[in-house]
Amino acid sequence: MAVITLLTDFGTSDAYAGIMKGAILSVDPLAVIVDLTHDIAPQDIAGAAYCIDSAYRYFPTGSIHLVVVDPGVGSHRAIIAVSAGGHVFLAPDNGVLSRILSSGQPNTITVVENDTYFRRPVSQTFHGRDIFAPVAGHLNKGLPVGCLGPEVTAAKLIHLDLPKPHVSKNREIQGQVIRIDRFGNLITNIDHQLIKKTFDTVDERDLDLFIGTHHVSGLSACYRETGARSLLALVGSTGFVEISVSCGSASELLGVGQGTIVLIRPA
Amino acid sequence: MAVITLLTDFGTSDAYAGIMKGAILSVDPLAVIVDLTHDIAPQDIAGAAYCIDSAYRYFPTGSIHLVVVDPGVGSHRAIIAVSAGGHVFLAPDNGVLSRILSSGQPNTITVVENDTYFRRPVSQTFHGRDIFAPVAGHLNKGLPVGCLGPEVTAAKLIHLDLPKPHVSKNREIQGQVIRIDRFGNLITNIDHQLIKKTFDTVDERDLDLFIGTHHVSGLSACYRETGARSLLALVGSTGFVEISVSCGSASELLGVGQGTIVLIRPA
Amino acid sequence: MAVITLLTDFGTSDAYAGIMKGAILSVDPLAVIVDLTHDIAPQDIAGAAYCIDSAYRYFPTGSIHLVVVDPGVGSHRAIIAVSAGGHVFLAPDNGVLSRILSSGQPNTITVVENDTYFRRPVSQTFHGRDIFAPVAGHLNKGLPVGCLGPEVTAAKLIHLDLPKPHVSKNREIQGQVIRIDRFGNLITNIDHQLIKKTFDTVDERDLDLFIGTHHVSGLSACYRETGARSLLALVGSTGFVEISVSCGSASELLGVGQGTIVLIRPA
Repeated sequence: MAVITLLTDFGTSDAYAGIMKGAILSVDPLAVIVDLTHDIAPQDIAGAAYCIDSAYRYFPTGSIHLVVVDPGVGSHRAIIAVSAGGHVFLAPDNGVLSRILSSGQPNTITVVENDTYFRRPVSQTFHGRDIFAPVAGHLNKGLPVGCLGPEVTAAKLIHLDLPKPHVSKNREIQGQVIRIDRFGNLITNIDHQLIKKTFDTVDERDLDLFIGTHHVSGLSACYRETGARSLLALVGSTGFVEISVSCGSASELLGVGQGTIVLIRPA
Repeated sequence: MAVITLLTDFGTSDAYAGIMKGAILSVDPLAVIVDLTHDIAPQDIAGAAYCIDSAYRYFPTGSIHLVVVDPGVGSHRAIIAVSAGGHVFLAPDNGVLSRILSSGQPNTITVVENDTYFRRPVSQTFHGRDIFAPVAGHLNKGLPVGCLGPEVTAAKLIHLDLPKPHVSKNREIQGQVIRIDRFGNLITNIDHQLIKKTFDTVDERDLDLFIGTHHVSGLSACYRETGARSLLALVGSTGFVEISVSCGSASELLGVGQGTIVLIRPA
Repeated sequence: MAVITLLTDFGTSDAYAGIMKGAILSVDPLAVIVDLTHDIAPQDIAGAAYCIDSAYRYFPTGSIHLVVVDPGVGSHRAIIAVSAGGHVFLAPDNGVLSRILSSGQPNTITVVENDTYFRRPVSQTFHGRDIFAPVAGHLNKGLPVGCLGPEVTAAKLIHLDLPKPHVSKNREIQGQVIRIDRFGNLITNIDHQLIKKTFDTVDERDLDLFIGTHHVSGLSACYRETGARSLLALVGSTGFVEISVSCGSASELLGVGQGTIVLIRPA
């Protein structure tokens, strides 16, 4: 009873995402398909890498995740299927699965080469429809991933150099804003595990966070903890520290964006 | 054969709505899920209150409607399940179900407290994923609403003070523009029942409608009744009077917005 | 195991598309529904005509396609059901099925008149909900199209005068830009068949394409063939010539839009 998810940069003004669903359902009429989002900025491989990593774990084991942010479509870039944590990820080999592959969980990587499962003819401009969709349909019907092609090792793949937070000798975490969501929350690359490991003896309410010229005192438990319109920091729903404004937009209030440095240290 | 509907202010650029679907399908893999919209303006509780009231009745009896416009997530606000008219509504207790509760139909209200049906761990920032979604999955599989927690009376809940139309002694209805749709139609809070009750002896073609400095003569039967680009008023698809421009935008033509006063009286 | 697809100009900020799904599922709870797009510009019949023609063929035989771009809703315009190529298309008789009807494949056209299958009461403003949705539900459950009303011939219908490419005596194709997609690709009305027929003895790499003051040499096989940010032309995924910029936007680079003339001739 698995699910096929779609994550693309196709937008929803064109019928591209709908056409992919038609191509999946033509192979497996019983497939359950869920959109993660189609609004990844065109060709934003890093944005898609964060998105799939934050989302896949909430789907049933056995789910198949199609990540089609693919500026190299039709060129010699490979398509890969990564089996990890009971899920299968289908994506171009362009780094978009970097966070899945670097998560430390065991995985198997297959190069998708066996064109038996492709739609004919295969265009050079829309592999989402002609390769990803029908292959997902066949996997969902029970085709073993190993039938798609030969195994490769992660070392052979393209990896993104995603910004990682680092901890200085004087126990200060330096990270950065990775993403701004619809509410104007500034989501960083500093995860809760790192906070706990680095400041294991410190109450999280006694941490200082600095962003631009602003200072936030302590991590809050929820968005409503402070008064409306005041700045706060908390561990968000996907496990990363975010800077937020209760009933407002931190992005607007601070006027900062992606890449802004965030520092956390004991008060 | 019921449906689970989703109404949120999450937008569709992030994967939040998709993640909720994953959490529902993890509990009930057979759930049929329909998006009403995720584009409620952030924290616009009144907008969501109108939307759910205009939409739910077109779904099969037994459907479960999740209304997650929830600025108080993680605070002490309760989550409620309202059973009314054969449908179940799950929402934060912030007034977003005000129109359902004030519709006059009998209802039962349950406080959602029994964490047996929650996803673990429950975050303080995303109850849509951790409470609303799995509880909906369990209800859809047959869990009685009464198992979610104790009953309360409507008097204990938060109610929005939504603007109501009023009828003056000289038989004039005064309402206002509540919402502007994608076509630029100005949708008011004046419903067809009130028109019929107030002006029971008057042909609807003999009513005068005033908005700003503009006057519309009579209620039309459809958008095409007048010539293209001319102003008209009619009872829209959800039973409320709306001001419209055939093949154009009333909002642009009149330059008015939400809250604009609308008067209706016999000619 | 067919699919019901939805193509409208309703947008996704209002619940209109969701309400249509509720009305379909109220008739056929097992219906599988796929959105093509709801972001057709309001009342853009020609845009919808291109979209449905480019999308339907990727769905299983027997699928039912609802095309609800319908500025004449509630007036005397007819609703038609066109059976062609194993698919059924439900649309207002306003030209939105012009490309389906002119494709040369045999078809049967039925006027949708039998109100047995309509939702009651039928509003004059939202036939998507009250006619298209329930009729699609009944068709999906097996109702023969012929039960919807009398047959008519294509000559009785409204046809759009969509711009067609033409071939001059000196073997030059003149077409135009029909649509700009999210990636900024300029999609023309010149299809691959016409290229092959007109220039049958010429290698496609030896064709010259002219758009505005720009010249592109040869048709490429994929978006990545040239260096990043350089202009190229290729046959896109739906079979039409498009002008594109690798990892960029042709629309932005050239500053041209819909209707721009495109010429193709041997070098």
